[in-house]
Amino acid sequence: MNKVEHIGIAVKNLEESNILFTKLLGTASYKTETLESEGVKTSFFKVGANKIELLEAINDASPIANFIKSRGEGVHHIAFDVEDIEKEIKRLKAEGFVVLGDSPKKGADNKLVVFLHPKSSNGVLIELCQEINLKG
Amino acid sequence: MNKVEHIGIAVKNLEESNILFTKLLGTASYKTETLESEGVKTSFFKVGANKIELLEAINDASPIANFIKSRGEGVHHIAFDVEDIEKEIKRLKAEGFVVLGDSPKKGADNKLVVFLHPKSSNGVLIELCQEINLKG
Repeated sequence: MNKVEHIGIAVKNLEESNILFTKLLGTASYKTETLESEGVKTSFFKVGANKIELLEAINDASPIANFIKSRGEGVHHIAFDVEDIEKEIKRLKAEGFVVLGDSPKKGADNKLVVFLHPKSSNGVLIELCQEINLKG
Repeated sequence: MNKVEHIGIAVKNLEESNILFTKLLGTASYKTETLESEGVKTSFFKVGANKIELLEAINDASPIANFIKSRGEGVHHIAFDVEDIEKEIKRLKAEGFVVLGDSPKKGADNKLVVFLHPKSSNGVLIELCQEINLKG
């Protein structure tokens, strides 16, 4: 794990939360992106070498819609930047962590991502992400 | 806000969670510290320029005991590193954020800290922290 790549925060209204986090962080969102496959609209802020990702559900089947229904707005996941996501998945499975899905998939912000089930990590939904190499 | 200084995670059993997070992060805790005034025992891990702080309640009056009772284990707060905590408090109050307490107090890991009420920040408990200058 190289660093905290971003912290994902579930919000009800991305437009309103963009204004709120711009005030909080003293910097504006530098990117918004919709991930149809995940049912989310996202917005990214830079804080030093870290990012804050706000997530709003775009439909009722979205994991963010479920999260907000059961827990309200708040921190949804912590994402760690990794060099080699396949190697990390193998290592963490061997350590007893529950990896969700069979292989990493394309997430927001040009990343390959995979999640660890919060039940195996003290209630914290953990994301691993590896920058997709655009060369070649 | 310079960066995410640390992410605070409420846990039931610090000893067990130290083992879990050592496996997860691939690095051992570099410090444990008890903050009697806050009713917590803490443990810190380095991940690049960021830290993970695990928090266990040491008595029933601890905010961490209340948190775990109502929400279970999980992310408790996000702490941002700031240059000048008094200036940030003033700025954030003017922006409408609810600052808890009248002035920053001594937190774990040699910091002056203050919290923003999660109701004013999308359900996220935000900590501001400023390194205490040991010179002089």
